[in-house]
Amino acid sequence: MKFSKLFTKTRKEAPKDEVAKNARLLIQAGFIHKELAGVYSYLPLGLRVLNKIENIIREEMNAIGGEEVLLTAIQNPELWRKTDRWEQDVWFKTQLNIGTELGFGWTQEEEMTHIMSQYIHSYKDLPKYAYQIQTKFRNEERAKSGIIRGREFKMKDLYSFHASTEDLDSFYECAKEAYRKVFERVGLGELTFLTFASGGAFSKYSHEFQTLSDAGEDTIYLSPEKKIAVNEEVYSDDVLEELKLEKKTLERRAAIEVGNIFKLGTRFSEPLGLFFKDADGNRKPVVMGSYGIGPSRVMGTIAEALSDDKGLVWPSSVAPSQVHLISLGDTPDVREHSQKLYDMLYTAGIEALFDDRNDAGAGEKFADADLIGIPYRVIVSGKTLADGAQKAEIRGRKEKDGRLVDFNGVVREVSQKS
Amino acid sequence: MKFSKLFTKTRKEAPKDEVAKNARLLIQAGFIHKELAGVYSYLPLGLRVLNKIENIIREEMNAIGGEEVLLTAIQNPELWRKTDRWEQDVWFKTQLNIGTELGFGWTQEEEMTHIMSQYIHSYKDLPKYAYQIQTKFRNEERAKSGIIRGREFKMKDLYSFHASTEDLDSFYECAKEAYRKVFERVGLGELTFLTFASGGAFSKYSHEFQTLSDAGEDTIYLSPEKKIAVNEEVYSDDVLEELKLEKKTLERRAAIEVGNIFKLGTRFSEPLGLFFKDADGNRKPVVMGSYGIGPSRVMGTIAEALSDDKGLVWPSSVAPSQVHLISLGDTPDVREHSQKLYDMLYTAGIEALFDDRNDAGAGEKFADADLIGIPYRVIVSGKTLADGAQKAEIRGRKEKDGRLVDFNGVVREVSQKS
Repeated sequence: MKFSKLFTKTRKEAPKDEVAKNARLLIQAGFIHKELAGVYSYLPLGLRVLNKIENIIREEMNAIGGEEVLLTAIQNPELWRKTDRWEQDVWFKTQLNIGTELGFGWTQEEEMTHIMSQYIHSYKDLPKYAYQIQTKFRNEERAKSGIIRGREFKMKDLYSFHASTEDLDSFYECAKEAYRKVFERVGLGELTFLTFASGGAFSKYSHEFQTLSDAGEDTIYLSPEKKIAVNEEVYSDDVLEELKLEKKTLERRAAIEVGNIFKLGTRFSEPLGLFFKDADGNRKPVVMGSYGIGPSRVMGTIAEALSDDKGLVWPSSVAPSQVHLISLGDTPDVREHSQKLYDMLYTAGIEALFDDRNDAGAGEKFADADLIGIPYRVIVSGKTLADGAQKAEIRGRKEKDGRLVDFNGVVREVSQKS
Repeated sequence: MKFSKLFTKTRKEAPKDEVAKNARLLIQAGFIHKELAGVYSYLPLGLRVLNKIENIIREEMNAIGGEEVLLTAIQNPELWRKTDRWEQDVWFKTQLNIGTELGFGWTQEEEMTHIMSQYIHSYKDLPKYAYQIQTKFRNEERAKSGIIRGREFKMKDLYSFHASTEDLDSFYECAKEAYRKVFERVGLGELTFLTFASGGAFSKYSHEFQTLSDAGEDTIYLSPEKKIAVNEEVYSDDVLEELKLEKKTLERRAAIEVGNIFKLGTRFSEPLGLFFKDADGNRKPVVMGSYGIGPSRVMGTIAEALSDDKGLVWPSSVAPSQVHLISLGDTPDVREHSQKLYDMLYTAGIEALFDDRNDAGAGEKFADADLIGIPYRVIVSGKTLADGAQKAEIRGRKEKDGRLVDFNGVVREVSQKS
């Protein structure tokens, strides 16, 4: 991808109407565009990051047996009246020109349960796992957290369907482990902790995955030693005793909820008529679980938690590309050799963002590279090519100094790390 | 993918509340679910087809320089008032709890133009091409055409931005050719014709891609010899003369509009303030084009135009898998060898849908294979394995008879065709 083809540009300054660090940086670097408060478009670099996060989640959902679907945004009120959730404030409601009232989905237990009621009839049809990665809509009162809490956002929602609570319990542990892998792979592993939260009618606790960040809206009590936490909403002596946590060892921290897993039991299957016949012919409600991760929120959390004072810092697994290639100096030698290195990287399957601009100086190019936050900055200039050497300067985004390496060495080093 | 893991099932009969063939077949085969009239969910097999169509479109848009983005569904009325399109009936409108009126996007010229106005300032910034594949919403009066005309549907919309009409004209021809490739690759090439349609204020004609089908809502006059057509809306002696078409050689046909390319000129750039400085420093409006294909409509059109009286017929490029593998007879030999062939196909990178059910008979399995419409049906049974042979019966979906081939031959034949 060449700068000269990319339609976005970086801005000299962060937008003045944004308070959230993630939105300020992502807009300044040209990753997203603010349409309205809490409503953001994804521009080429931003969409690449979002897609990589979604693909990591997709792989881990497939690995635990998830079948991918794509449900509708438009929701039928009839289903939501059965579960008493049609009157909530979170809805964006609309209507057909012919008069019928409709809503835009903010979660999808109702629709998924209704679909399953057409296919699940017997214990032999269980268990089943279906998930989607879909745009969702919430009529949020406040929307000042950039893409961390949007009115329109991407959500991966997995729903599981079981013949018994034991089977749900067992799958729930698989999902927990899959979530741990997701946060590890997107580069938030060390900052993200399994957190006990309120569980609803069916289960004492639900589990959240909370990433430490000053921008977090949640407060958790973290045990650094046991690597688990308790959400303030359930924080009490009784709970600490049950979880064998010592109050004085816990740290009170702000955190962003990046994932949530929840045992639903029969909360949705009963009102929506999702029943099955067990081996003895008895009619029973299906036991359900629900498991959410917001890919756009994960992207915002990475921007919030990993960036530094120079700009964004992307883990290589989700970076828009692995290399930020910079040509310095508009000479035939530099032009030819930077293009050659770009081609070598491409042939090796390594994505590079190539700053091939002639009208930008070294300072501007370096500042852009730091702001955009791609893992490796690689410079080809008259200096690196001196005396006929085919060399470039390579520097990791968080490294202080660059090193002079020949072109093959650049390809080798990046291949090993990505 | 094994039948025993797949949550969907085929139905014995088509749904009674659907009149459109595409919806009847796709629901009966478990590809989609009807949420409301014109609002359909994509189930595992259906989403695979939709994704394959989208990826073919994506590849062809990337090949002509398109940069992929993802704009928002939620739209700001302010932009649409500037182009006088806020008062149209097609909107699903809603509002924030705090009162502001909003709409859900049914096309995106306004938003894309507005975004570009932040990045395009000089002739050096042109041309640029941005596209997205996004869910769109239209408040259609009638929605009886299944996924061919939905109230919620997928749309690929590409927008091009140029310094001159000459540059637009030249790119427009590239886009036309890219569209031709898309319809060729998804298997609609022989049925789809470039069609002259009304052009708006800026251009005499726009161009549609129309696929012949009895289900089509459009009427076109087709020249089978020249392989172009004229939409009824512009059909006149003058137009025929200009296009050098002889009236008596034309066939009047029903067709589905599967794509549309349109020269917008300065219709959107002027009211939305997208101007640039040319080489002489003069301020000029950017010249635009817009290019749409509905992936969900393409899927519906394939279902409509290529299916037969037994069920769906998918071209291999968009089929949910290449092989529909059937095990017949619940013996250890059949179980072991059908699993072996499934593994061999998987190792060769060939996707198979494996009907491994024990509780379904041969007739049911054959009818399901015909209904689902995967390119190859491959049967492993006591008969094909007789005398220790590692053979299977292979039959193309449109072939009358099967052939007995050894397992390696099955892998080879399918590899060559897919």
